[in-house]
Parts: sequence; C-alpha cells; structure tokens
Amino acid sequence: MTNATPATSRPRRRPALVALACLGVLAAHAHADEGMWMPSQLPQIAAQLREAGYAGDPASLADLTTAPLDAVVRAGGGTGAFVSGDGLVLTNHHVAFGVIQYNSTPERNLIDNGFIAGDRSGELAANPDFRVLVTVGFDRVTDQVLGAARGTSGRAYFDAVDAAGKRIVSECEREAGVRCSIANMYSGTDFYRIRQLELRDLRLVYAPPRAIGNFGDEIDNFMWPRHTGDFTLLRAYVGKDGKPAAHSPDNVPYQPPSHLQVASDGPREGDFAMLAGYPGITYRHRTAAEFAEQVEWTLPARVDVFDALIGVIEQAGRDNAQARTLYASQLQSLKNNRKRAAGELEGLRRSDAVRQRGADEVAMLQHVARDKRGDLQALDQVLAQASAMRERDQLLGLATAQTQLLRAALQLERLRIEAAKPDAQRESGYQARDLALVEGTLKQVQRRYDPQVEKALLRTLLRRHLALPAAQRVAEFDAAFGRTPAELETALDALYAGTALGDEAVRLALFAAAREGRPLQADPLLALAAQLVPAQMRLEDERKARDGELLRLRPAYMAELAAWRARQGRPLYPDANGTLRVSYGRLERLQPRDAVTYAPVTTVAGITQKHTGQAPFDAPSPLLEAIAKGDFGGTADPALGTQTVNFLTNLDTTGGNSGSPVLNARGELIGLNFDSNWEAVSASWWFDPRYKRAVHVDMRYMRWLMEKVYPAPHLLREMGL
Amino acid sequence: MTNATPATSRPRRRPALVALACLGVLAAHAHADEGMWMPSQLPQIAAQLREAGYAGDPASLADLTTAPLDAVVRAGGGTGAFVSGDGLVLTNHHVAFGVIQYNSTPERNLIDNGFIAGDRSGELAANPDFRVLVTVGFDRVTDQVLGAARGTSGRAYFDAVDAAGKRIVSECEREAGVRCSIANMYSGTDFYRIRQLELRDLRLVYAPPRAIGNFGDEIDNFMWPRHTGDFTLLRAYVGKDGKPAAHSPDNVPYQPPSHLQVASDGPREGDFAMLAGYPGITYRHRTAAEFAEQVEWTLPARVDVFDALIGVIEQAGRDNAQARTLYASQLQSLKNNRKRAAGELEGLRRSDAVRQRGADEVAMLQHVARDKRGDLQALDQVLAQASAMRERDQLLGLATAQTQLLRAALQLERLRIEAAKPDAQRESGYQARDLALVEGTLKQVQRRYDPQVEKALLRTLLRRHLALPAAQRVAEFDAAFGRTPAELETALDALYAGTALGDEAVRLALFAAAREGRPLQADPLLALAAQLVPAQMRLEDERKARDGELLRLRPAYMAELAAWRARQGRPLYPDANGTLRVSYGRLERLQPRDAVTYAPVTTVAGITQKHTGQAPFDAPSPLLEAIAKGDFGGTADPALGTQTVNFLTNLDTTGGNSGSPVLNARGELIGLNFDSNWEAVSASWWFDPRYKRAVHVDMRYMRWLMEKVYPAPHLLREMGL
Repeated sequence: MTNATPATSRPRRRPALVALACLGVLAAHAHADEGMWMPSQLPQIAAQLREAGYAGDPASLADLTTAPLDAVVRAGGGTGAFVSGDGLVLTNHHVAFGVIQYNSTPERNLIDNGFIAGDRSGELAANPDFRVLVTVGFDRVTDQVLGAARGTSGRAYFDAVDAAGKRIVSECEREAGVRCSIANMYSGTDFYRIRQLELRDLRLVYAPPRAIGNFGDEIDNFMWPRHTGDFTLLRAYVGKDGKPAAHSPDNVPYQPPSHLQVASDGPREGDFAMLAGYPGITYRHRTAAEFAEQVEWTLPARVDVFDALIGVIEQAGRDNAQARTLYASQLQSLKNNRKRAAGELEGLRRSDAVRQRGADEVAMLQHVARDKRGDLQALDQVLAQASAMRERDQLLGLATAQTQLLRAALQLERLRIEAAKPDAQRESGYQARDLALVEGTLKQVQRRYDPQVEKALLRTLLRRHLALPAAQRVAEFDAAFGRTPAELETALDALYAGTALGDEAVRLALFAAAREGRPLQADPLLALAAQLVPAQMRLEDERKARDGELLRLRPAYMAELAAWRARQGRPLYPDANGTLRVSYGRLERLQPRDAVTYAPVTTVAGITQKHTGQAPFDAPSPLLEAIAKGDFGGTADPALGTQTVNFLTNLDTTGGNSGSPVLNARGELIGLNFDSNWEAVSASWWFDPRYKRAVHVDMRYMRWLMEKVYPAPHLLREMGL
Repeated sequence: MTNATPATSRPRRRPALVALACLGVLAAHAHADEGMWMPSQLPQIAAQLREAGYAGDPASLADLTTAPLDAVVRAGGGTGAFVSGDGLVLTNHHVAFGVIQYNSTPERNLIDNGFIAGDRSGELAANPDFRVLVTVGFDRVTDQVLGAARGTSGRAYFDAVDAAGKRIVSECEREAGVRCSIANMYSGTDFYRIRQLELRDLRLVYAPPRAIGNFGDEIDNFMWPRHTGDFTLLRAYVGKDGKPAAHSPDNVPYQPPSHLQVASDGPREGDFAMLAGYPGITYRHRTAAEFAEQVEWTLPARVDVFDALIGVIEQAGRDNAQARTLYASQLQSLKNNRKRAAGELEGLRRSDAVRQRGADEVAMLQHVARDKRGDLQALDQVLAQASAMRERDQLLGLATAQTQLLRAALQLERLRIEAAKPDAQRESGYQARDLALVEGTLKQVQRRYDPQVEKALLRTLLRRHLALPAAQRVAEFDAAFGRTPAELETALDALYAGTALGDEAVRLALFAAAREGRPLQADPLLALAAQLVPAQMRLEDERKARDGELLRLRPAYMAELAAWRARQGRPLYPDANGTLRVSYGRLERLQPRDAVTYAPVTTVAGITQKHTGQAPFDAPSPLLEAIAKGDFGGTADPALGTQTVNFLTNLDTTGGNSGSPVLNARGELIGLNFDSNWEAVSASWWFDPRYKRAVHVDMRYMRWLMEKVYPAPHLLREMGL
C-alpha cells in the first residue's frame, strides 16, 4: 500500500512522495490510508505505520486485549475509551444521549443545560439497558464453526454454521458477567470468538449542553466544517468483587487494565493520526458484479421507489392535515434514506467505483488457477439467482416495512405460528425476549396510521408487483390482491373497509391470543395474513439456503483477492463487522469540488458565525462570552492563535466508529470521532482518498470547555490534565 | 486609502504590506480597494493605482470620452465594451438575453442552441427597443441646475431642480441621435449633463447555448464558485452617414473611437485587475442614522412583512390548486426579495456596519465647524420625519404593489385624473408614452388574481395599518376600510363581492374611458379608488417636499464627509448613480466562513462535477466532450494545467455592472463581470473587504469556446486573436 498524498494537500512529511503524487504517478492505485485493520494485522504493516509517522512500536498494537487497545470499548451503539484509572469512559454526546435523556426532567433539564457531577456521589445512573463492553478475549474458532458445515451446502451449511456458533456462544457465556459473540472475518473464511466484559452500571459524569454537544444537529450532520462538542464522560462501576454487576449504590468504580492519556498539545495539518473503534459494516470486498448492481440497480431503484412513496405521502397530506401529522416521521425517514441513497450513488459514480472495481477483478482473475475457478463461477451464479428476484424482494420488503396495519396482521399471524414451537426454535424476533418489542410496535400503530394513506402506499407497491414478470410474482400475493389494478383496488377497499385492526384494543387482544398460539378471530387482514405468511416463510427458507451458499463460496473469492492484493504489495483487511479495528492516516484538508477547499481544523470563530440563537445554532451564552473574551490559555492552537473545535482526518471509518478515540504519533488522545463528510457517504463500498474524511472533536476544545466554560477541574485532574 | 490585504490571501505583490496586515496593524481601517471612482478622480489616486500594480498612466483614464474608457458602453440594462473596430460589443449573455429570445423560435431555438453568425449578412437584428449608449459628453452643470433652487426649500427646491434638469436635457437632445440625462453626484452637491450616442441598430453575432451562458441559473446565482460562460457578442450598426439610426439593411457597422483588446494571457491570484462600468445605486455615504434604520428597522420589517405575505399565499395554495398556480410568480418574487433582505441584514450585521458607520460619523462630527452644524441637524430632522411614517409608507406601498384588482382600480382613477392635464404636466407613469404599459398591466390581472388570496393579502396589510398609532393612520383608509378587524372584513367582502373589475373586458372599457379623462362607471372598487387616490396624491406631495429638503441638505453632510475622508487620506467617491465608474483591485480568494476557502479561479473540472443532465446543470455534449478531450491549447492556464472558466476579484461592483470589462495591469481585457457573491449582498450599503468579491467570465474561457467548442475563427480574427 502506498501513502500517496493528493497534489493539493500540504503534508508535513515525505516531500519526495508528494512530488510523485503531483505528477500523477501514484494516482491510478492511490488507496492511501484505506484500511480498517484487525490489530493482529498491524505488525504486518509496521513499515507503513512508521513511515506514516507512528512513533510507537506497531507490535504493541497487535493484541486488542492488552494496552493500549484494551482501553477502547464498545459503548452503547458506538465506541468509547477509558480515560482514567477509575473507569471514566469518554464517548460521544450522541452515543450517550439516551443516558442524558434518561436523567433529564422538565425541572432539571440535563439535555438543554448539560451536567457536571460535583463528586462521585453526584453521578447519575444510566438507563439500565446501557452497556459498555470490554473485549477480553479474541480467539480463532474457524474449525469449530465450520467443522460440521464442511462437505455440505446451501441450507445445511447455513444451519450448521448457525448451530455451531450458538453452541460456542452458549458455552462461553457460562462465565458470569461475560458476553460472547462470533465474528465472521473475510466473508466466512475465518470465525473468531469474542469475549467481552459486560459493564452494566454506567453513570453520567459530564455532559455539555445540547447546543454544544449537538451544535448544528441534522443541518450540520455530514457537513464539514463542523463546530460541535460531541463528547460526554461516563463512569463504569462494578460490584465490590470487581465483577460486572447491575446498578447498586454499593458498586465501586471499575479499574480498567489501562486507559488513554489526553495529549497536552494538539495536531496540525499533515500530522499522523490513528483511530481505534468498532466500525459496523462495509462492502469493500464485494464482487465486481455486486458493485455494478449496487450502482446500476440497487441505489437508483431505492431512490425511485422512495420517491414514489414520498410522493404518495405528500399528495395525501396536501388535503389532509391529520394524515400530514400521522405520517410526518415516516416521510422524514423516507426522505433521509432517499437522500442517503442518492448521496451514495453520486459518490460511487464520482469515484468511478464500478469501472475501477471491475478492472481490478479482471486483473485478479488472470491469476486464478484453473481448478479454483469453479467456486468463483458458482458464487456468481448464486448472486445472479438473488438478483433475479431483486425487484420482488424490494417491493415485498417495503410492503411490510412501510405499512402499519398490514405489518401488524403479518406479525400477529407469524407470532401465532412461532408460538407453537419451543422458544429456542422460534424465528428471531418472535422469541420470548422479543415480545415486548412486538407489543410496542402494535401499540404505536395508532400514532402513525391513516387508512387512505396506507392503501395508497400499498397501491403503489403492489401495482409495481403486478407489473413484474410472472417468474418474480408471488402466487399468494396474486391470489390475495388480484391480477389487475382494478382487482387490486377492489381487494384493498374490501380489506380496509372490513378490518378491525385499526382499533388498539382489538390488536392487543389478538396479541394476547397469538403469543399463546391460539387461533385469531376472523378479520379480513388476518385472513390475508394467513394467505401471505406461508409465502413469506417459503421465501425466507430460500434466502437462508442462498445465504448458506454465499457463506460457503465467498471464502474462495476472498482467498483470490488476498493473493492478488499480496501481489500488489497491499495487505487485505477484512470488511467491517462490528469488531475492533484500527485505522491510521493524518490530518488532511478536503477539496470537495472545483475551487473549494476545507481546512482540516475549525475554530471557535465558526461557532459565532453559525450562531443564530435558534436551535440547532443556539450556542449557549457562557460559550459565546468565553469566545468573545478569548481566554483560551494553554488549549489555544499556537499557529492559529485561537481555540480549535473540530478536526478532519483521512482515517477510515464507518457507522459504529462514533466515539472512537483518535491518537497522535505518541499514542496520546487528540480527538474523538463523531461524524463523516457528505462526500464520503459512499465509503461503505468504496474508499476514495480524494473524498474520504472523518470528523473529530479536538480534545483541546473539550479541555477548554472543562477548564473555562463549564469548569470541572476535578475531572481534568482525574484525567491527568 | 490603504490597500491592506487580509492575512489569509496570497498576494503576489507588496509583501511588506501583507506582513503588516498579518499583524492586524491595518485591520481597523481596512477599506482595501473600496471605491467606484469617477474617471476624473483617477489622477488623484494615481499613486495607489500604480502601487496596486497598474502599468498604464492613470491620467489616461481621467476622461471617459477618450480611450480606453470610451470603449465602455451602456448596453441594455448593463454594461458592454467595444472589442473590435467594426462595432463588436461584448456583454453578458443575461444582458443580451432579450436579443437572443427575440430571435429564437421553436424551430430555430437560439436560446438552447446558441448562435454564430457566419458572416455579417447572417447577423440578426435585436429587438427594436434594445439600446447601446456611448457616452460622448460629461459636463458639470451644477450652477445651471441649482441656480433657481438656491434660496428656496422643500417642494420649491425639488421643483426648481426638476425643471432645470428637464430644460437642460431637452436642449441637449435637440441634436439627433443623442440622449441626455442629468447625473446627481454626492447627493445633490454636483450635477453633470451626460450626452450619449444612442445606437439603435444592434445585431446578434455570437451567443453560447443557454446551458453555457446561464449554466447554474438561479441555483448558482450569487454562489461562487461559478462555472458560467455568461457572454454574448453583438454588433452596433449606424446609418451610412455614421449617425445612429433605426434598424435598416442599408446600415453599416459602427466604427467606435476605440476598442478594447482581449489579452493573450490570463490572470493569476493576486494579479491587478480593473473594471469599468455603469453601477446602478449604492448607499455607502448615508448617515449613521440611516444605516441604523436600515439594519434595525427597514430590513427586519421587510423580512417580517414578506414572511406574512408568503404565509398568506402558501396557506391559500394549500387547498386551492388554482390559486397556487395564479400566485406562483408573486410567491417566488416575494421569496427572492425576502431572501435578499435577509442576506443584506445578515451581511450588515456580520460586518458590524452600524457600529462602524456610527463611530466614523462621531469622529467626523468632531471636526464640523459650529456654523455648519445647523444644516446637519436639519437633515437629521427631515430623515426623522420620514422615519416617523415608515410603517405607514411600507404598508400602503405593499397594498398597491402586492394586489391586482385594487392596483387596477387605483391606476384607472389616477389615469382619469392625470388625463385631464396636458401630457407634459402629467405624473410620470401616466404620460402618453406610458399608456401601453398601463394597458398591459391591466390585461395581466387575469393571470395573477384570485379574489380570496387578494382579500387575504389586503387583510394582512390593512390589519397592520389598523394597529398603527393614530398619527400614522391615513384617514381616507380608515374611512374606507373601517377601524376594527370586523369592519375591515365587512368592507373587503363588500368590495370584492360587488366589483366587476375581475372581468378583463370591463377593465379595458374603463381604461378607454380613463385615458380620455371620462367619468368611470360605478363599481365598489372604483368608488374606493376615488376615496383613496386623493390621499395618495397628498402623501406624494409630502414626499416630494421632503425629497426637496434632502436634496438641499445632503450636500452639507457630503462636504463634511469629504473633508473627514481627506483628513484620513482617503479620497471620497460618489455613491453609484448609473454613471461610468472605475474600480481597481486584484484577484483574491474568499474565505466566507471558518475553515472554508474559495480559490479565485475555477476550471472546467467544475462543469463536469456540477453536470447532472438536468437544467440548469445540463452542460451541452460538445462542451463535455471538449473538456474530456482536454484540448485547451493556448487558452489553458499554465500553472493549473487546465482550462479556467470564471475568476474572482475584490473589485467594487453593484447592480448595473453586469457586462463590465475587467482589465489587467496593461489595460487588456481579461474578464467580463457577471455576478457577485452571496456574502457581498450587503455591499450596496457597506464594503467589507473580507467578503466583497465580484465574479467574472475568464476571457480565456470565451476564447476556448470560440476556438474549439463552438468555433468562430472569423470573430476571433476580428478581435485580433
């Protein structure tokens, strides 16, 4: 892997390489700083890490269960890090938002006002379901997982892998206070057992006001330059025996095996940076055919069908104020998803990802031995089978996801069927532990349902189903909804005129019957569900068989890709899967389009500029006054002569990296990851070094806030500052 | 005046001064490059001009009736310049758009396809009302204009100035082919008689397709970085005697006394640039009280009342598709004006203009001799009188401007009254030459009127009138509309239920009667107009008396300001008034907000990036192909290695500067002004060197288009290229 620098940036290192980049020599394979590395891979790329500026020993990063990586934890839905020996956990304000909200009341509004615990007795217990997970074991279990699967295929392969994984997890979790899981690396090539301490007693220690922690909110989300203090401090507690325990006043602060030290200075453009965290999911190593489908069909089709559904809801809302209110949230969500799909499409096109991935795969295939080609062809065939039904799968998926009453009927019927099985054998989502969620969904219907809108949404989706070729149509749907638009209309009218499911009491009575596997009372929508659920289950079985084949066949592709990358001198990192990864790179400006340059560091001047007094740009008075006063002391950037707020790197991140600690060359904490840039929304598929950036809170801003604006000197002392 | 350079730009000259600027030494009075200079002032600032980089003799710019300034002409509503000895006029595509539209048909769509005249016989006649004006005389006539006015005040002063001006213009225009006007410099201090050749036979020679000439349209308007080829070439023709003449096939190309030469190279960041043109109106030298009123009342009140009217129309459109259509244009216009007012307000606040202008005036007043203070106090009083009625004037103005039927009734009644007078004594807008326009307005009503919406608009405005203190209310309006919201409602219902003015035939019949001064038939809205028009005329008289006082008193203020500026070493330029002005400065980047930098030059890469295939981002295929081919030859920028499109300077411009030629240090044509930036929308009041920029077509882009994309080698030859 080469660390090429775009011609326009101003790196502070390696001028010789920059000169080459200026000449375009490295442009063709410029995968600079791409990579979400497993810690165990870092010794392999030690030379590059050192060349990039890392001052420590790459070997010390190899084990995620020793320092410094054991200080990096899973926190809520994101990442966090221990920053003191007494269990202080630093994460994003938005990751810990549930904790803040849980402790906030109209009288004591912690969301708006922020919170500082004066001492440990003042720390506030988090919501009981908030978790911090500390990885304590990471062991390869590939042979155990695949042992029974080898030699089988399809559904049998799927079930064997699934059963082996469940068995390993179950054994592992016999130890109290430990949560285990299986991580699939390189698409079924390797499996790891992950053991994590499950810390269950978290307490709120320090949170800035919302107008700092979420300054800019949705408007600024993805929009560098940002000016947000998106951080919060929690503290983890354990029982007196040092073991994880539920909240109790008798608990004591957890003593982590190691913690990170906040740097006493800050970074500048070009400086080395490194990040560790739990990125969720990426598709970087998908096949060329999958890339092509994503750009040529999946994303455009998503935009198209979302546009149609948005049109339906907006049209309905035009003359119906009540429908407008009921569907406001669904409309917003459709618009966000539509925007994201369009952004991803735009990004993949801008990066010419399909052509580049295609050319890369063609080159790879030239090196594949003749006897290895069978599996690759078989993989192509399974993917093609799935593609052949893509329109159907999209439409039927949306018919459930975008409706309320139809979804409720299907859920009730499925619950009735699953309830007849022993709990362990039930489909996920219908086990005993899932029922509260099902009940909640059934209750929410009232706040999100209008029969005219639901019929209009279904009409749009089912007319598209009607227009599919016969091979993609589902017989049970045809039987239930008819074969012409007129028949569809009659069917919809009859269903919604006759159903009693719009009544919450009726739904809850049905839920009570279904959870016991009892027969459900007569209702047109339930009769429909009785027709459709068997079809859904049949399609589900087909999907699982296909997933089994993909699990069996993808490793062959990954092996060839790894060999090809090795030939190119580029080690292969596995696609993100929620396990701990490390990325390295540097502070780097962004040139998103012709004549526009974004500096990699923002300052408090931007807060004053953005401030309007109206949320989300309503910086609190103490902050504005402190900025005007200009008393930044030791946290000011010496070159800029002012206080920095956020900074930008070319680190490789995706969802789940929220709250990831960003370290400097000496391994000290300089930032907290919290956002990405709009131009990089397609990075889950393709890393384009021109546009991929990650956005971090500058630790100097956190220190300044805690020193001068909302002071907490005791916490700074605890962090050694 | 000091030419300080903001610390962040990269000038190519005067590093010593830049270093000072970095230290903030010049920041306090950094009016770098502010100024719309009368050519006659340029010798006064010769030292600064040379220091800024001008290589020519500033004295040669002093006379706008000799070369090179006599090549700069008024073209349509903007500016243009002669670029060949045979009368080729270069101006903006948007300035010449009417000419293109006039010659465009569905079969031969010059707007979409552009146009190249193969030879002179192929040139297409412009619409007959398109004019190019060449200034041939600029003479101070202050004594003639003010002679009769001196010693009078108020309305008498106004009438004396008005009458003297009309007499001078009338005498001047005895010469055939010449149009004359009076220019008021320094707010009534000096008056100039301007003589202009009125070229009436213009022909279309070269226009790029709309998707080049107006690439980005409203979306990119004001939004640097821009990528627009906003230029068009016309040719001026005259009679065989060389005198201006109406269009005739016998006419011959006009031979201008001089023309500009397009440069063979292009500019870089920091390079000197100079611009000449006809800026429309600025308010830079208004009093501190007027600045305060603009920011504290005028602009917020404008935003507030526009928001109310926008709300009325949007609410009405929610349930009424027809109203939505009828008011679409009015709504768009309200939104544009609202956006502009909000932008101006934001800009003036960002620049802290009220405080700065206030401090400047306080400092100035310390130097005013005791015996000169009376006039300044009197001026303050007149301004205060006008302010005392500002709410009333805003509301009544909008009641006319934002309605259709009420406006029609008031126009018909006023026309009936004016028609009884000799034409010369009629109020402007009701003279014989205005009647076609009045008739057109009366016809348009049908396409823009819905009674419910008009009543709702009037309800909003008149309720605000009702809420005014008694001193601001107009008795005739109170009598007509009542004194309570309930009475207002009854009055509106009666007026709109009973009127026949919604019928076009009725309106046109009334127009026929009114233009002959005949009595108008009975109608509730006309009865209302008979009540209100006398009130309007009374308010008009009051306004003219006040305007006379302002005309009499402002010169005292301007004299003090000039003396104060002289003490500061800064010559004073007059506010823009549609006369020829010169501005100088340099190519300069823009840093609109924290961490964002816009380069001062854009390239064709930006066209490809913005291209979506949908207007206004639908770059034509020949352009996209030529960009992809990369054959830029001699027009490429040597440093950037690609084709430039637009560039950015800190030149001082305002509306009317569209089409202004931009010259380099050697006086060669390097650009064509066509836009400004959003951050500078407040520059009509306050020049902030941090944000004020002007946007130009790079002449290299025009040359490249004419060489390689839509070739016109004969025209390039004619321009000496």
